[in-house]
Amino acid sequence: MTKLSTIGEFGLINRIRKNFTQGLPPEITGIGDDCAIIPFNDKEALLVTTDMLIEDQHFLKKRISPYELGYKSLAVNLSDIAAMGGTPENAFLSLGIPVTTEIKWMDEFFRGLKYLADKSNIFLLGGDISKSDSKLIINIAVTGKADKSKIKKRNTAKPGDIICVTDFVGDSGGGLKALLSNLPANKDIKYLISRHHLPVPNLDEGKWLSELPGVHAMIDVSDGIESDIHRIMESSDVGAEIDLNKIPVSETLLKVSEKYNWNKYEIAINGGEDYCLMLTVENHQFEYIKNNFSTHFSKPLFPVGKITNNIGILNFKLNKKNIDFSKHGFDHFKDN
Amino acid sequence: MTKLSTIGEFGLINRIRKNFTQGLPPEITGIGDDCAIIPFNDKEALLVTTDMLIEDQHFLKKRISPYELGYKSLAVNLSDIAAMGGTPENAFLSLGIPVTTEIKWMDEFFRGLKYLADKSNIFLLGGDISKSDSKLIINIAVTGKADKSKIKKRNTAKPGDIICVTDFVGDSGGGLKALLSNLPANKDIKYLISRHHLPVPNLDEGKWLSELPGVHAMIDVSDGIESDIHRIMESSDVGAEIDLNKIPVSETLLKVSEKYNWNKYEIAINGGEDYCLMLTVENHQFEYIKNNFSTHFSKPLFPVGKITNNIGILNFKLNKKNIDFSKHGFDHFKDN
Repeated sequence: MTKLSTIGEFGLINRIRKNFTQGLPPEITGIGDDCAIIPFNDKEALLVTTDMLIEDQHFLKKRISPYELGYKSLAVNLSDIAAMGGTPENAFLSLGIPVTTEIKWMDEFFRGLKYLADKSNIFLLGGDISKSDSKLIINIAVTGKADKSKIKKRNTAKPGDIICVTDFVGDSGGGLKALLSNLPANKDIKYLISRHHLPVPNLDEGKWLSELPGVHAMIDVSDGIESDIHRIMESSDVGAEIDLNKIPVSETLLKVSEKYNWNKYEIAINGGEDYCLMLTVENHQFEYIKNNFSTHFSKPLFPVGKITNNIGILNFKLNKKNIDFSKHGFDHFKDN
Repeated sequence: MTKLSTIGEFGLINRIRKNFTQGLPPEITGIGDDCAIIPFNDKEALLVTTDMLIEDQHFLKKRISPYELGYKSLAVNLSDIAAMGGTPENAFLSLGIPVTTEIKWMDEFFRGLKYLADKSNIFLLGGDISKSDSKLIINIAVTGKADKSKIKKRNTAKPGDIICVTDFVGDSGGGLKALLSNLPANKDIKYLISRHHLPVPNLDEGKWLSELPGVHAMIDVSDGIESDIHRIMESSDVGAEIDLNKIPVSETLLKVSEKYNWNKYEIAINGGEDYCLMLTVENHQFEYIKNNFSTHFSKPLFPVGKITNNIGILNFKLNKKNIDFSKHGFDHFKDN
């Protein structure tokens, strides 16, 4: 009997996608992007995304505060809406909770969730609550809207495009590594952990970038640049080249990486859960967009590589030389 | 420290509802009905519902076939759309799966889900797949549409209304009881178990009933008549009287109940997972609606009681006498 572990998460998704996209009207985007896109009216489309967080798989209940967990459960969904250039509207929460959970813990969970909901102008409109034997299980679905003519997808990258990210990467992965290694919590470590527990969905950036025809493809960085550029490559039938020297790494991550002898590239590329955006920009519009972005957001738009004609091939460069940087991207079902 | 078990599922939901309904625009219905109702255009509203199924809480993986589980995971959501008189459109699936799951098992799960999706003209448009340590976790969210002026809610029952159900109740509860007691699987037992594993969402009935102004409140019977009439009572600020002699019980359940000395009333009222509809009908329109319903659907609309002025009070009658039939309705967090 063949087990799931042999085909992996992406193998399973492809299997499902093949099965469920027959007969889908062309104006609907189903499985295979950050959100589903459903026509709504002449101008707008409805966006829907959903994410499940399982205790000990996605979070360690003893290492994250309930406030942070409530916040993060919503944040990861809002990040998917940001990746399409959309505006989130409503959230739906399913919870599987052990009966021994303290009410105070739940109240804190909901305080964190509500903080981000209020900040993002969205409502929690429903859900489902059940008992779970031992593990806490959280599923949030979020609906939103986007201008149909402006939605950014994964399948529109073009050879020659500059690949950019909207923030430093690796802080969250470093925070997770620090948590798992039980590093002493000085200011730097606390900062990295807070970036892991309280990611900021780039909703304003996503919306602003979606207005620009020069921005071609967009995705949120959830599993790490390496995994996520592969998603753009597969959807757009292109290749990519990432320049490790250009990967934006924060001073804090640099400092901590040196201290603990971490491979900063590995963490920045494959740590995941950055929840900033990765986008591909028409080459000759790059300078213009980069300058306007930094004026508007008071932070740089970081170029990290380019889209190539080498369909399916991802190359890494370090100090202008090709290097072998084998795939470490996250697959839930395969050994990484 | 107060644990969740002391306030129960409904205590927690009320706590969340209080927290998350401040500032909600009046045209939006949030937490507290079968679906959230969100204005869509002049005529229609968007419906959203979500349900989580956890292994060993909601199903026994060894006792339900993967085909049935895929079917049922979607059916319970479609039933929520039926309860509003809506039409389902799209589904979003989150799965937490153990890596040891066999691909053949997954394929069968998706075959069952696809059967019902195709039958109901809906698309699976997205989701999320993660590894789960040991338990299988399924969350489905469904979106749909309904005519804004025709949506049936829980808060519109009126004293004097006749309470009706659209099908026999208790077969599913009997099937579960048979499964848990490992009863020998003769034809009758198999029938009850199939009613537990393959419930039929009453989408056509819900839509037909929603057209009638004489139908006031509507809900799907998921936790059993007793629990679910309480939800209508609380939302509508009314009381109710259920006549046990009128509860529609199938010949099969009657036969099996006699054989195994089951309390057929207990199973019919509190077995749950019937996924037919319960509705309250304006008294003087009852005969008309009942007759048309049975002509249209070739099955009876069963009256089981009436809505009263006794706010919050549920009375049971048996052979025209009040009887004490204490609350056994299902609360996930309290001992039942």
